Parts: sequence; structure tokens; C-alpha cells
Amino acid sequence: MMTHPPADPGALSPAEARALFRGGLVRPTSGFSRGFAQANLLAVPEDCAFDFLLFAQRNPKSCPVLGVLESGQLESELLAGGDIRTDVPLYRVYRDGALTEETPDVRPHWREDLVAFLIGCSFTFESALVDNGIAVAHIEQGVNVPMYRTALPAERAGRFSGPLVVSMRPIAADRVADAVRITSRYPAVHGAPVHIGDPAALGIADLMTPDFGTPVDVAPGTIPVFWACGVTPQAAVMESKPPLAIAHAPGHMLVTDARDLEYQVP
Amino acid sequence: MMTHPPADPGALSPAEARALFRGGLVRPTSGFSRGFAQANLLAVPEDCAFDFLLFAQRNPKSCPVLGVLESGQLESELLAGGDIRTDVPLYRVYRDGALTEETPDVRPHWREDLVAFLIGCSFTFESALVDNGIAVAHIEQGVNVPMYRTALPAERAGRFSGPLVVSMRPIAADRVADAVRITSRYPAVHGAPVHIGDPAALGIADLMTPDFGTPVDVAPGTIPVFWACGVTPQAAVMESKPPLAIAHAPGHMLVTDARDLEYQVP
Repeated sequence: MMTHPPADPGALSPAEARALFRGGLVRPTSGFSRGFAQANLLAVPEDCAFDFLLFAQRNPKSCPVLGVLESGQLESELLAGGDIRTDVPLYRVYRDGALTEETPDVRPHWREDLVAFLIGCSFTFESALVDNGIAVAHIEQGVNVPMYRTALPAERAGRFSGPLVVSMRPIAADRVADAVRITSRYPAVHGAPVHIGDPAALGIADLMTPDFGTPVDVAPGTIPVFWACGVTPQAAVMESKPPLAIAHAPGHMLVTDARDLEYQVP
Repeated sequence: MMTHPPADPGALSPAEARALFRGGLVRPTSGFSRGFAQANLLAVPEDCAFDFLLFAQRNPKSCPVLGVLESGQLESELLAGGDIRTDVPLYRVYRDGALTEETPDVRPHWREDLVAFLIGCSFTFESALVDNGIAVAHIEQGVNVPMYRTALPAERAGRFSGPLVVSMRPIAADRVADAVRITSRYPAVHGAPVHIGDPAALGIADLMTPDFGTPVDVAPGTIPVFWACGVTPQAAVMESKPPLAIAHAPGHMLVTDARDLEYQVP
């Protein structure tokens, strides 16, 4: 079982990356399989699946659905030859809304009736920002992006409700417009920012104490820019308490076979 | 009860247009409430709703979901103050996949457990084509767009499967690229064409015998351009035979309170 990190994770094919994680490697996936989209995972029992898919439809910026594995389905064209129960480096298991386990192999907890939702991840638009010469602080600092529960509710659907969760990137004031323009072209992976410049209006008291991820400095000359975040589904799970939910651990995403550029619109 | 057509249907607010249809006016909605999006309707029983929403998620070009009314819900922000059972000018009722009634008031057939899906309509991108000086033949001829069942299957989801249905517009050869560029900006209402120039590759033997709508000439110097069509859900209903489904009649759409421009991406 190979569990040591590869020399150049960006050069791995998505199938190679998934095989490493299936083999036991536990590692944040930032930088793996350059050019390929990564996905948030949320699996819920079939009798919650309509409500969750509707929650995603009503919250397209925070929960853009890239693919759905129906109950009993363990792979799809997004993870060809893979297994959704082993191919994410680290999983979180929620029972009645409470985090009960964190594990690299979720097979002991999986159920036949789970429906797995693969949700777009900001890594795709971050690559586009970097390719356009826009500095992204948490990437430069090698840490996870800071994320915040806001005072704004997500749109409710059936049993699912919860706060909108946002990620924050400080952007140089003269590149904020460019950052909007560039991320607008990726509506399938959170798209344009939901808010620019005023944390208080989102109910965020202190940018240095994020609810998830790692704080980053808002350097002089930069403006805090907020995007809808794929952790919103996990916040809804915590609030809505389905009997079982299985998610990725923050930063430990599914590496998919879809190219980032497939999600670009004009 | 006012049932005569208004002098300038384009000037009506969406609420005024819906009130006319609720009052008994039966008329195709092309040209009503200029600048506002119209929607395809498909309502199915709650126990089919997950499968249909998944079908839509897997077929985003033919079935872009603008909104969902949960069981028991008769209005939403897309039809504020309205009633989904009366505000479409003409409905079609399908039982076990067979069209059994066409009626302007579907209340006698409605059930408490129906979930109603509002699906984007090509009128939105047609307005953008016309605004950009691209002639659209069926609009100039005052007829419904020609639509064809293709030999290509839509992506299956649960009990729903069926052919991809496309609409065809002949576009001047020197504007085909513009038509692609313009409609690409509206992914929520069918987006870019799925095919350009070769009906046979879609399994269409004769453009002059469409499966739905009205044939239009492909004039010299124009190229047939094919877009995914919102009739795809009705074709899936015919093939998949849910016990009950309620849809709009072709061309008789729901006039919504959403502006066309809300669906434009950069």
C-alpha cells in the first residue's frame, strides 16, 4: 500500500490520484491533477435525496451539482473505475447532524440507500485566478481557505435549511473587477462573488476567526471578496440533522475526471 | 371574464399576463411581457419527483430548472400572487404517458402531491438573437419553432428516459458563430447549440416534417442550427409513463416574473 506523497501531485492523472487515496494516502488535494476539477461530496439516504437535490437547485452558487450517484452506484463518468467510498482521502460521517467519525475509508459506514452528490469546488476558479495573475493569499501561504457561516439563510428545501457559508479571498483592489469577471465564467463552480468588501453585512464579526479553514491576513490594498462555499451543504446537515450523512473532510476533495475548462462559459 | 387578446401583449406585466390567462384567454405566449422569461411546466407526483429532478440535473441543456414548486405549493417568486393550476394558457394532461386532456384550467386534474418544475424556454435566447440582428425564421413567419425527436438518448435518471428533443432555427451562415456566442451566454435557457448543420447525424430524416411545431424553410445561405429543447421532458413522460403528468401545451408557456437578463452570464 503506497501512502507516501507523490513527487509531483499535479502531474498525476485523476485516476492515479484516486488510486493513491484509495490505497491509504491521506492528504489535502489542493494541487493534485492540474487542470482537473475537484468535488465536494455529500451523501444522504434516499429518502432525503429529493430534498437535498432541491436544496442544491435553489442554492446554485453554494451547491452546484456536478453529478449524482444514485443509490447502489459507486462510480460514474466523474470517477471512472473508482469507488466513492474509498477514493476521497478523508471522509466525515455525520449522524443526526453531529460529526461522529473522520476516516479515510468510509465503507464500514456506507449504506446501500445512500445517494451521493458531487458538488463543484472553488479550486477550479482559483486556478483560473492564478492563471490570470491574481494572487490568492491562502494558496501563497499554503493553507486552507478561510470560510465563514453568514447571517444569511440559504434557501430552504424540504427538511434542509441552514446558513449560507462563504469563503473569503483578499484581492488587490485593482484586480477585484477582474476576479469578478473571471469567476463569473464558472457558474458551475460557485461563479461570481456573492459579496465584496463588507464582512459586517454578512454577519461576520472578525475575519481572523473563520468557522472553517485557516485565517489569512487582509493585506493593505486588498479587499475581502466572498464567494458562496461548498461547505454550505455540511452546515445544512448540521442544522437539519438527517439520520446519516457522509461528506469529504475540508480540503480533502474527490479528484474527478472532468476538466476545469469543461465548466467555463463564454 | 376578459378573454379577448390585449392590444400590446408585450407591454403587459407578467402578473397582468397571468391574470388574463387565469381569466380564460387561450393564446400562445410568444411576445407577451417583453423582457421577462417564460417557462415550460412539468408537474409529476412526489414519488417521481427525485427521478425527474435528477433527469433535469443530468440533462441541463434540455431541462434547465428555473424553479420548483413543492407539493402543495401553488405560487413562488416566479409567479408571485399566481396559481400554477390556472396561469398557463393551455395545459396538457398525461396519464401513463398518454395525452388525455388539453385544458385551460387544470384544477380538476391537479393533485396535492404534484411537484411542479419550471424549465427555461428558448424565447429568452430568441429575444437576444433578434436584439443582435439575427433573423429567426419562425418568428418572422409567426409560427411555432419546429422541433424534432433525435436518435440521441437523453441521460437516463431513475424511471425517466427518452430521446433528446431539439428545436431548429436556420441561421445565416455568416451569423452562425454569433448565434453560438450569444446563446452560450444563457446556459439556464438551453445555452449553446447542441449541433450545427447536419440533421442526419441527429437521426432527422426530413426537416420539413417536425415532430412538434411547424416546419420552416431552410433558405439558401442559411444553416440549420439545433438547440436542446424544453419538450424533452414531455418526450420522457411519453416514454417513461408516470401515472400522471401535467405540462403546458406547446407554445403556451408560463410567463414568469424573472427578467431574461437575470439568466445571462458574462
